[in-house]
Amino acid sequence: MKKIAVFTSGGDSPGMNACIRAVVRTAIYHGLEVYGIRRGYNGMINGDIIKMDSSSVSNTIQKGGTILKSARSKEFLTVEGRAKAAEQLKKFEIDGVVAIGGNGTFTGAMKFYEEHGIPFIGAPGTIDNDLYGSDHTIGYDTAVNTALDAIDKIRDTADSHERVFFVEVMGRDSGYIAMPCAIGGGAEIVMIPETTTTIDTVIDTLQNGWKRSKTSFIIIVAEGDEEGHATDIVKKVEKALPQMDARVTVIGHIQRGGSPTALDRLLASELGIACVEGLLNGKKNVMAGKINAKIVYTPFEDTINKKKLINPRFTRMVEILSI
Amino acid sequence: MKKIAVFTSGGDSPGMNACIRAVVRTAIYHGLEVYGIRRGYNGMINGDIIKMDSSSVSNTIQKGGTILKSARSKEFLTVEGRAKAAEQLKKFEIDGVVAIGGNGTFTGAMKFYEEHGIPFIGAPGTIDNDLYGSDHTIGYDTAVNTALDAIDKIRDTADSHERVFFVEVMGRDSGYIAMPCAIGGGAEIVMIPETTTTIDTVIDTLQNGWKRSKTSFIIIVAEGDEEGHATDIVKKVEKALPQMDARVTVIGHIQRGGSPTALDRLLASELGIACVEGLLNGKKNVMAGKINAKIVYTPFEDTINKKKLINPRFTRMVEILSI
Amino acid sequence: MKKIAVFTSGGDSPGMNACIRAVVRTAIYHGLEVYGIRRGYNGMINGDIIKMDSSSVSNTIQKGGTILKSARSKEFLTVEGRAKAAEQLKKFEIDGVVAIGGNGTFTGAMKFYEEHGIPFIGAPGTIDNDLYGSDHTIGYDTAVNTALDAIDKIRDTADSHERVFFVEVMGRDSGYIAMPCAIGGGAEIVMIPETTTTIDTVIDTLQNGWKRSKTSFIIIVAEGDEEGHATDIVKKVEKALPQMDARVTVIGHIQRGGSPTALDRLLASELGIACVEGLLNGKKNVMAGKINAKIVYTPFEDTINKKKLINPRFTRMVEILSI
Amino acid sequence: MKKIAVFTSGGDSPGMNACIRAVVRTAIYHGLEVYGIRRGYNGMINGDIIKMDSSSVSNTIQKGGTILKSARSKEFLTVEGRAKAAEQLKKFEIDGVVAIGGNGTFTGAMKFYEEHGIPFIGAPGTIDNDLYGSDHTIGYDTAVNTALDAIDKIRDTADSHERVFFVEVMGRDSGYIAMPCAIGGGAEIVMIPETTTTIDTVIDTLQNGWKRSKTSFIIIVAEGDEEGHATDIVKKVEKALPQMDARVTVIGHIQRGGSPTALDRLLASELGIACVEGLLNGKKNVMAGKINAKIVYTPFEDTINKKKLINPRFTRMVEILSI
Repeated sequence: MKKIAVFTSGGDSPGMNACIRAVVRTAIYHGLEVYGIRRGYNGMINGDIIKMDSSSVSNTIQKGGTILKSARSKEFLTVEGRAKAAEQLKKFEIDGVVAIGGNGTFTGAMKFYEEHGIPFIGAPGTIDNDLYGSDHTIGYDTAVNTALDAIDKIRDTADSHERVFFVEVMGRDSGYIAMPCAIGGGAEIVMIPETTTTIDTVIDTLQNGWKRSKTSFIIIVAEGDEEGHATDIVKKVEKALPQMDARVTVIGHIQRGGSPTALDRLLASELGIACVEGLLNGKKNVMAGKINAKIVYTPFEDTINKKKLINPRFTRMVEILSI
Repeated sequence: MKKIAVFTSGGDSPGMNACIRAVVRTAIYHGLEVYGIRRGYNGMINGDIIKMDSSSVSNTIQKGGTILKSARSKEFLTVEGRAKAAEQLKKFEIDGVVAIGGNGTFTGAMKFYEEHGIPFIGAPGTIDNDLYGSDHTIGYDTAVNTALDAIDKIRDTADSHERVFFVEVMGRDSGYIAMPCAIGGGAEIVMIPETTTTIDTVIDTLQNGWKRSKTSFIIIVAEGDEEGHATDIVKKVEKALPQMDARVTVIGHIQRGGSPTALDRLLASELGIACVEGLLNGKKNVMAGKINAKIVYTPFEDTINKKKLINPRFTRMVEILSI
Repeated sequence: MKKIAVFTSGGDSPGMNACIRAVVRTAIYHGLEVYGIRRGYNGMINGDIIKMDSSSVSNTIQKGGTILKSARSKEFLTVEGRAKAAEQLKKFEIDGVVAIGGNGTFTGAMKFYEEHGIPFIGAPGTIDNDLYGSDHTIGYDTAVNTALDAIDKIRDTADSHERVFFVEVMGRDSGYIAMPCAIGGGAEIVMIPETTTTIDTVIDTLQNGWKRSKTSFIIIVAEGDEEGHATDIVKKVEKALPQMDARVTVIGHIQRGGSPTALDRLLASELGIACVEGLLNGKKNVMAGKINAKIVYTPFEDTINKKKLINPRFTRMVEILSI
Repeated sequence: MKKIAVFTSGGDSPGMNACIRAVVRTAIYHGLEVYGIRRGYNGMINGDIIKMDSSSVSNTIQKGGTILKSARSKEFLTVEGRAKAAEQLKKFEIDGVVAIGGNGTFTGAMKFYEEHGIPFIGAPGTIDNDLYGSDHTIGYDTAVNTALDAIDKIRDTADSHERVFFVEVMGRDSGYIAMPCAIGGGAEIVMIPETTTTIDTVIDTLQNGWKRSKTSFIIIVAEGDEEGHATDIVKKVEKALPQMDARVTVIGHIQRGGSPTALDRLLASELGIACVEGLLNGKKNVMAGKINAKIVYTPFEDTINKKKLINPRFTRMVEILSI
């Protein structure tokens, strides 16, 4: 292996730059040439590929977003698209590729390897954390802290006005972001896709709280909750409790940005190193992750097909702590 | 004057606690007794009034929200409500009141003085800044910095995905928050109630930008813009530019919370002192403000009826700086 | 078990309040009465003990410091001191105690139990992380992020002026804070008590960097490094490299304060619950910790006598990543 | 005027990039070519000069430090050094120069104009704020907020341990940073070069506080205070009060870095525009500043020779508010 490439794909997440940096510098450390593919699989197809050296990644570890930019590629879903991408990689004599992204990215990588034989290794770059094969994904800790910081601000105003706030955080398929936000934000209720929290439960909790002279409430809603978005849920609750003084805040895309936390920088750096050294050791079609403080490589098949479950202990914690 | 009271009313804003703290300690400094009225005019009506001393406000200068809580009172809009409130103030032998809030608060204060003769003095506590009689209102600088911090995060992801972001900030009647967010956030367009920015202008700016290979855009929208909310505007623009990859973020209530900035703590402290010393000097029906670094007292009538205009220089700045 | 008490002792750390809150609410959840002992063991001796209910800990999860205050007690080191403390606990009919602190705290607790038979259980409250029995201690993640945020700011000025910065972080006996700061801060060198980094190594690294046109450097120094404090080290290096334009920053006590991160709030909450439920299950003389995402109870003897080693992988990471 | 240049010089300050950005884009807006001189006057002497376009300053408004780097130049203090610099500017056909810095920078600029006739205009880039001709200097608001954030963290631990903290902030010749830190940080004492606060006053304040059961204190010290550095002062106080449990924190260089606040971004942007438009209007040997919300141009002679006084109202505020 003499030349490798790195790219970011899918939704961006804080720490992607720290991971790119680690890939670039580890490659140089091991005497490899390293290229950056810009704009995800689209850039691979279009040959949007640049040579990188140590200074290309100077002063990037603390930056949100991705200096290689990201995109979702429809063309790469086609046989023709992948063939074009293979041509480009061959032109640059790329022997191995580090893909920083999520399951969409890894699915593409698997197909590409079957068809064109260039090995890919993955790093889990997504704020959602619902990726089998790593305790944390790169960007998750930052996203949670960003959301929590917003919730702290909301609590100031909720408390001053004695209101009920429904705060929607990211998580289309999982409550991984919602759960620590609820516990860390001192929320009374958390509504996530993995568990059923009915509108009646919300109503009961509010009514019981009012009885105990609790005057402000924070309810964290994962965007993919089975009762709908926060705006839907508040309407349903208001039907039963018209006296409720409620507000909705959707934290939104700020969760994707910002300077990565220490944990995310460290994780991204470790996994970037692990990807390059994994490629050098002949690994392919696997994602580097960190489980119980150890680096592990999980086959893309497993990251895609297996489900990472949220700790059931957490649900009980919200109940106890909001007593 | 022997006993004064202080309360917060209307939407809460960061720095209200710093102002309460200054009122309490200045009162004590001048040998006065001081009371806190909780929950705005409602608390005045219900006698929700507590004695305060120096330690009541210890460790509060850095806290968002208001330790006295806030509310909007319908009952105080009635003659009967105000009579009840007067009864309570007389029971506690309150000689003067510091009202931290906005024009709704001051309107009530004026009526109350006419009917019951207890003097009120105001401090401008609102994030909106559209209050005649002070260059800055308490909480405005914090709200702008909070919104700007969110916009910085959004730029990370906008830039990585080469998207157009429509970011809605607070400002029902004014662009005071939107304007520094646009300039400080490096936005390409700002849409505020005070000026007309048509959908066609937005379309032109985007198209011209794309021609110059600009790939990501941030458009700041004040919630009260004449073209509607950010969600409305994006729909109108998408009709003409279906290829646009756009996202909307509504920054929302986080702008009301959080620890106040240095400027807001200083301003709140100065105005709290000015309110108490104003009362001692016989002032009433005026708001203490700071204009050109000097403390000034403006009649409530003027704060309510006169309009504070946004600096027209700013609009030109957005145009120059996004070239 | 009917009545328990909780206290904080030793150096304060962010998340102590979140832990107190969890102890209080879990106790109430299980039908216990709960008391707070103020000012550590001194308060125990002096009967500075207050009844707590659910609202005593409202709105505290996000706050730095400790609402119960902390102190180091010389008197508790004596048999007489501990006898006075036992008298107080008996007066309040306390059946069990949750001690949030470090090894000094736990040593006292063990002696106390031997002499007076009241069971103590511990939670690891220290920013230093060098406590056997938990992957993270409460406050560690926050301290690291605070230091890292400071280092990011220093890098701005180091880079602008092309200077060498020696940044000292906390860690009298360990490099637990220094190491993630070095990796996450993009430092060129890290100097910690656990490993030997000679002045010659520092000189070589700087000279090699200059040869490769690197113009600014950040060197992270744990306060307990064998070469001395950052101010000492810079003097030694300057002797060999008088042309070096260097500055020293000691991050200091800001690392102890601030709002806890999500990870610390979660950890503190989990361990607070684990302490109360541990006491209810008859555990004593153990510290609740979290290892590989599971709650574990480690005997005080082990937390005191066993050493938690820093991951050797990290040293290699600094070398690779600063290439 | 067809070609202008911009450079940063002296200590870096947050907002310098926002100012460079405004200079570059305003130049382009007015049809000028624009060059960046790197490394201050040294770069001018060495021809370290680069062509800049609109994208050179993309995504920089939020960044601390200066993308053009800064330095102090001994060579420029000599006639020969300035002659070399003039040669370089003539080679690049530079007709006018925007200097972002402080009085050292402006003194050099005046001499240079006398000798070589190329007009310079200045923007006040320094965190210290002690520059006649502008209410605020670029970076001052950020530095104050950074220091205040650190003080908030210190208060957490001061309060928990009931300690006295001596916190040293920047300000060799002035208390501009110290004063708002003291007021906004809720400090009991502020020690600045402009006023005399004796060690006896400190001792009295502490003793009076203890009598009133105040248990923790924060004392803000400007580095240039007449009683010495914070470490000196604490030693003097400890002599009289050996029972005092005191700590020192020197906030240091973090005050120079970090993302600029809204106020600094706005100010830097306005002044950058004002510099370019000033040059176009024939102004020279003046600094663009903002006084009472209006842009004003002050002769370098005045910025150098006149003294900007700190508002005496502030000293009284610290006294009242720490009652």
